[in-house]
Amino acid sequence: MNQPLVYLDHAATTPMLPAAIEAMTRQLTGVGNASSLHASGRGARRVVEESRETIARVIGARPGDVVFTSGGTESDNLALKGIFWARRAEDPRRTRVLSTAIEHHAVLDPLHWLAVSDGADVELLPVSPEGVLDLESLRDSVARDPESVALISVMWANNEVGSLQPVDEVVAIAAEHGIPVHTDAVQALGQVPVDFAASGVDALTFTGHKVGGPYGVGALVVRRDLAVSALVHGGGQERDIRSGTLDVPAIASLAAAVEESVKHQHEHAVRVAALRDDLVRRVVEVVPDAHLHGAPAGPQRLPGNAHLGFPGCEGDSLLMLLDARGIECSTGSACSAGVPQPSHVLLAMGCDEDQARHSLRFSLGHSTTPSDIDALVEAIGPVVERARAAKAR
Amino acid sequence: MNQPLVYLDHAATTPMLPAAIEAMTRQLTGVGNASSLHASGRGARRVVEESRETIARVIGARPGDVVFTSGGTESDNLALKGIFWARRAEDPRRTRVLSTAIEHHAVLDPLHWLAVSDGADVELLPVSPEGVLDLESLRDSVARDPESVALISVMWANNEVGSLQPVDEVVAIAAEHGIPVHTDAVQALGQVPVDFAASGVDALTFTGHKVGGPYGVGALVVRRDLAVSALVHGGGQERDIRSGTLDVPAIASLAAAVEESVKHQHEHAVRVAALRDDLVRRVVEVVPDAHLHGAPAGPQRLPGNAHLGFPGCEGDSLLMLLDARGIECSTGSACSAGVPQPSHVLLAMGCDEDQARHSLRFSLGHSTTPSDIDALVEAIGPVVERARAAKAR
Repeated sequence: MNQPLVYLDHAATTPMLPAAIEAMTRQLTGVGNASSLHASGRGARRVVEESRETIARVIGARPGDVVFTSGGTESDNLALKGIFWARRAEDPRRTRVLSTAIEHHAVLDPLHWLAVSDGADVELLPVSPEGVLDLESLRDSVARDPESVALISVMWANNEVGSLQPVDEVVAIAAEHGIPVHTDAVQALGQVPVDFAASGVDALTFTGHKVGGPYGVGALVVRRDLAVSALVHGGGQERDIRSGTLDVPAIASLAAAVEESVKHQHEHAVRVAALRDDLVRRVVEVVPDAHLHGAPAGPQRLPGNAHLGFPGCEGDSLLMLLDARGIECSTGSACSAGVPQPSHVLLAMGCDEDQARHSLRFSLGHSTTPSDIDALVEAIGPVVERARAAKAR
Repeated sequence: MNQPLVYLDHAATTPMLPAAIEAMTRQLTGVGNASSLHASGRGARRVVEESRETIARVIGARPGDVVFTSGGTESDNLALKGIFWARRAEDPRRTRVLSTAIEHHAVLDPLHWLAVSDGADVELLPVSPEGVLDLESLRDSVARDPESVALISVMWANNEVGSLQPVDEVVAIAAEHGIPVHTDAVQALGQVPVDFAASGVDALTFTGHKVGGPYGVGALVVRRDLAVSALVHGGGQERDIRSGTLDVPAIASLAAAVEESVKHQHEHAVRVAALRDDLVRRVVEVVPDAHLHGAPAGPQRLPGNAHLGFPGCEGDSLLMLLDARGIECSTGSACSAGVPQPSHVLLAMGCDEDQARHSLRFSLGHSTTPSDIDALVEAIGPVVERARAAKAR
């Protein structure tokens, strides 16, 4: 079977952009540790600092705000633990961390660890059936004892159902009490407008391989005047917040990808949203009881996200049957895939276990074409039929 | 000035091997998150697991022992904190960590943090004037209260002066009491024979960019039956010890570099040691009071390391004067360069501050040629003369 691959899993990882591959390839033959004092070292440092400036410029931050890390998971861990530790060290009453029930595991798992191993009092606030943080709950929780809140962490956009979160309102609530806000913008950057300074958040996570850059590199953008305790100690790189030899080729490539994806964000979003809307409409034509989870397609949803429920099917069966036809998608987050558990996101949105299991996420990206949608629409009818037959047996 | 670059700072970072560049380049155009269940994801996973098997085979480990990380600093942090936490959780009496005074900052700084923030009782054991751990001190320290030792961490070879450490004896001492041993083998792998199982250590750090692989990737090789608490929580990758999306291209490239550098280790060591011996002999001919720090050139020293003292000079001046002539070296670890402090390694070896400041590290590698040595020998006389004149002013 030499069918062309239909890749509809860009939220798990998206192919590198040509500019990012080029930037990386150019650096691979270089030499020089960016901490070395000689000419090669200074040259490597220059690449790093120019990359930092590029990223800062296109995301509305100052270069000094950008701390390079190994990716989204490390950035989230650094933000949550590092800000929690620093804020509690300043005032021991600050033991609470407020977040949402629909965060990525890269946020939920460090929060769980802080609760179990470090005495943090973590509250995962509820969301609406459309997958949007309930602001009243946040307001109430903060008001109960504002002095005790070390940190609020609310993702910019959900990775499974694509719902954008009310980050502006979260910032407004937090600002009344001087509470720092972190946001995981891994899924948002390059898909919707993201401006660090304008958003008012204090710390923001993004990662390379979701914006057409490489794996293994990302950043925590964090206001310079916010204390962050280090998670990884050593040579003192990155404001002493994140030690480790700087990955010059990956950082150059990351900057190229961020610049390119932010520059083309609007036209990308328009193009991909149209494809996504076409996908949803035509799939529902073929499978009339299929339905979109999360926010309606529109400004409150990531343009490339179509998360659909197929009653009477197992998501895993659908995924495998589509895969056998060369169509690749996901049942949820790639990072927890492999473990057949119902999605915590869908459960938090009020789905029952059965509903949470009958879902597929199609996520579109820069390489998605109309023919990808055609292929899915052609396949989905027989695939759903077979999955229902399998489940009914 | 278009002089050819004479790069004698391979211990800071060494150029990528062609096989490593090729392996990485091949993967850059791929797609598929190694945690995804579809064909692309399974393909990415296959690359990761084949890389893991290659690395395990050439370093004498089992594939399940290899935990991929973002590099040496993270691996050291994970080993020290992760093993300390797990061992103390098993038995609260285990509060001591024994290490040496000449470790890299990637070991010293997490140890300092554990001592200050987490109640660890850290002992940095003394070394001989040649930069070798004093085994009697280790034996005495362990014997004082073996039950309280959570972990021993001793580097395989020192990054500044190149002295190999008595890892076999450390393992023997630790084994009497069932104490786990970690070793930072960042400088050793590919330079001297390193066999994980044969060494008897429980955990071993190495990193890509010191063996001709990429930056931003490394591993902690750690026995599967040794409990290690995670430092970075999230999707549960890498035995739940190290979460984060796997960096497929970098891992493939790392495996290529490790395989290549270990395969050619012996001939590399012979060739590079001969060049190093030539360098030392001829530099001392030109500057008669220059002298080698650390172990004598021979089996107790890294083959590519020449760490020389130049009385009456500032190391930083020498470095800059050589750099102006296109010759690149270091005054010590790249990771603490930029901060003009005397080396903690030389101080631990009994040098006074002045001696510790008048030193340069020349580190040779796979791209070093006899003409690099010729260029240094030609430059060193006038450079030392100018540095002495500058200091005398």
